[in-house]
Amino acid sequence: MAEKLAPPSPTQELADAGREFYRRGWTLGTSGNFSILLARKPLRICVTASGIDKGTLDETNFLELDDDAEILQGFGKPSAETLIHLTIYRFLPRARSILHTHSVWGTILSDAFFERGAIEIEGYEMLKGLAGVQTHEHKEVVPIVENSQDYIALAHVIENVMRDASGLHGIYLRRHGLYTWGETAAEARRHVEIFEFLFEVLGRQLK
Amino acid sequence: MAEKLAPPSPTQELADAGREFYRRGWTLGTSGNFSILLARKPLRICVTASGIDKGTLDETNFLELDDDAEILQGFGKPSAETLIHLTIYRFLPRARSILHTHSVWGTILSDAFFERGAIEIEGYEMLKGLAGVQTHEHKEVVPIVENSQDYIALAHVIENVMRDASGLHGIYLRRHGLYTWGETAAEARRHVEIFEFLFEVLGRQLK
Amino acid sequence: MAEKLAPPSPTQELADAGREFYRRGWTLGTSGNFSILLARKPLRICVTASGIDKGTLDETNFLELDDDAEILQGFGKPSAETLIHLTIYRFLPRARSILHTHSVWGTILSDAFFERGAIEIEGYEMLKGLAGVQTHEHKEVVPIVENSQDYIALAHVIENVMRDASGLHGIYLRRHGLYTWGETAAEARRHVEIFEFLFEVLGRQLK
Amino acid sequence: MAEKLAPPSPTQELADAGREFYRRGWTLGTSGNFSILLARKPLRICVTASGIDKGTLDETNFLELDDDAEILQGFGKPSAETLIHLTIYRFLPRARSILHTHSVWGTILSDAFFERGAIEIEGYEMLKGLAGVQTHEHKEVVPIVENSQDYIALAHVIENVMRDASGLHGIYLRRHGLYTWGETAAEARRHVEIFEFLFEVLGRQLK
Repeated sequence: MAEKLAPPSPTQELADAGREFYRRGWTLGTSGNFSILLARKPLRICVTASGIDKGTLDETNFLELDDDAEILQGFGKPSAETLIHLTIYRFLPRARSILHTHSVWGTILSDAFFERGAIEIEGYEMLKGLAGVQTHEHKEVVPIVENSQDYIALAHVIENVMRDASGLHGIYLRRHGLYTWGETAAEARRHVEIFEFLFEVLGRQLK
Repeated sequence: MAEKLAPPSPTQELADAGREFYRRGWTLGTSGNFSILLARKPLRICVTASGIDKGTLDETNFLELDDDAEILQGFGKPSAETLIHLTIYRFLPRARSILHTHSVWGTILSDAFFERGAIEIEGYEMLKGLAGVQTHEHKEVVPIVENSQDYIALAHVIENVMRDASGLHGIYLRRHGLYTWGETAAEARRHVEIFEFLFEVLGRQLK
Repeated sequence: MAEKLAPPSPTQELADAGREFYRRGWTLGTSGNFSILLARKPLRICVTASGIDKGTLDETNFLELDDDAEILQGFGKPSAETLIHLTIYRFLPRARSILHTHSVWGTILSDAFFERGAIEIEGYEMLKGLAGVQTHEHKEVVPIVENSQDYIALAHVIENVMRDASGLHGIYLRRHGLYTWGETAAEARRHVEIFEFLFEVLGRQLK
Repeated sequence: MAEKLAPPSPTQELADAGREFYRRGWTLGTSGNFSILLARKPLRICVTASGIDKGTLDETNFLELDDDAEILQGFGKPSAETLIHLTIYRFLPRARSILHTHSVWGTILSDAFFERGAIEIEGYEMLKGLAGVQTHEHKEVVPIVENSQDYIALAHVIENVMRDASGLHGIYLRRHGLYTWGETAAEARRHVEIFEFLFEVLGRQLK
């Protein structure tokens, strides 16, 4: 059998994921942003620069930022949504990579389930792809947060949502997109794929 | 981190976009045409030759034309729709690249919304992918124009539509396709992706 | 601008088309078959061997056959549907390449429109991708023929359908697949893409 | 015409199939598992290791196991569902490769048809892609089994289902995924493609 090459770096993993998500239509029109945690104290992350085409994403499209979203390394400007990444890293010790995507089915569900406050998914084997879930009988709750251009306020809302609900794997900004995370870039990517699969399953059954 | 190569030429960018649009099913059957502005006075553009398979589009498939759609360089014949490109360039000083695509969801919406006169899209984060749009609360209006084989008349109708409505990012020919544009080839491509994403979101929610 | 290489052979063009159709889901599970006309008198064609995976189709997967479907060259056995190809070539002097594909939307439409006898498509710009069609106001009629495993009988039915209706670009076998053709491999491929686009447009609007 | 290279090994064929299934969205989020039979007495199989990304599946991702699911060769741990593979190999002498996939349409159908006990598919030409099926008039029955995390119990249920119904080509675990098999890796792959095509045809027509 063939030998495996050295494993890719985390930013390479995110670049691979981003190009694949683009292909699937989850990061069209330069939408979406991806990050990894480099250090927790003081907080230091790598995040995609703003306005990058995800179909050709590569390692040069990442910025290294500190806790105040100041650029330590790299070219371009950070997305306004970097604040949300920083908030999630601060709040969730388990999160070491955060992915934000925009899909058609997610967008539709975030509207259809907005009144209920969350997309609830229960009874599907694919739920076991979410870290720590052992059975399809699990009920996954993805809180839906009203979209806003005030990212500071939005970050506070997201912090409160995470405070009220433990065990979350993702949060949906209404008519905007998914935030999900993982202990590794690979886990965060798997969470995107699992959620998108399940969003499509639910979305196609909406009456 | 790896070094980036020299940036692609505008026709190379359009060729890349065209092959990607083909993959997504937005330029099947040799449909669609793409152009860039070379000079404004006198008007000189580069546009895809007629009848070209967009799945293998490359730089040799472009023609250089003057203001009267006369060929200055390149092989093949210009699309009859070149007139519409020229009209948009004349009317919109901001436009430096124009893309025309045919998608399933756009076709369906252009029929479903025809009586209302426009596809109206409001409240989606992805709207921020359109140049100058700062908030998801923006309402984007995409006027729908009845399709015609009389391209001179059609060009006049489109000119009138652009005169009546400022701030447009695109126009839809009923049961035919989208015209959108940008200050660069990349911006025009982003607009196609944003519109197609939003058309699918709306289309999947039609009752 | 870059130089174009020598044009591909017709079987290479069909192999390219086949791999693309597979990617789009129109020739899954080794379904579909493709042919080109080599000579008309006596009739000699090249056709895909039976049971070939279209995702990796190449020039070695074609058989050269005579008028009686006897193999003149190549490895494998001809599809039982070769008879239908031969019938169409005999009847339509214009046809020099025939493509047969199986798509989800086509299958659904062939059932939904079976009672009416044909899939009728009218008013779409994409119709102009069919050879000789000059306006979107054209009404394209795709007769639907009941499926059968008796290919001799089926070939006769198809011959009668072609006799009764001139100007056809394709015929649909109910719950089975599309036959379309062209004067070149490229034209036949374009017809598949045009029909599949329009089938999806109609299929998504079925109540 | 070009010469064909030596045929791929069965694990290479499964790796190719897995990457293709991933592309189509049938093995997202590391879901799915694939095996081939190496020897029947004593039973020895090759099966994908647990938690592998199917988008980059290669031959090194397979484990060689004995009848007790003990690892004879390879890195990683076997999926808990290996038991189901072993059960099917023991019961069906014809099966020499088993594929398990998770698709959106299959998931939806397995719920919609659960009360009826099976997904029944009849009258489609594509059914002829299932080994031994000679006509579109065939009725294919895909029993639906309630999902469970008790794989020993599940394997017993599957054994009973296979005992009660001869001539099956696949079994569906409710809201989980498809098990299908073949005499070769290529036949098993063809069965996945045929079933998924037909699931989509049925799924899109659900009221």
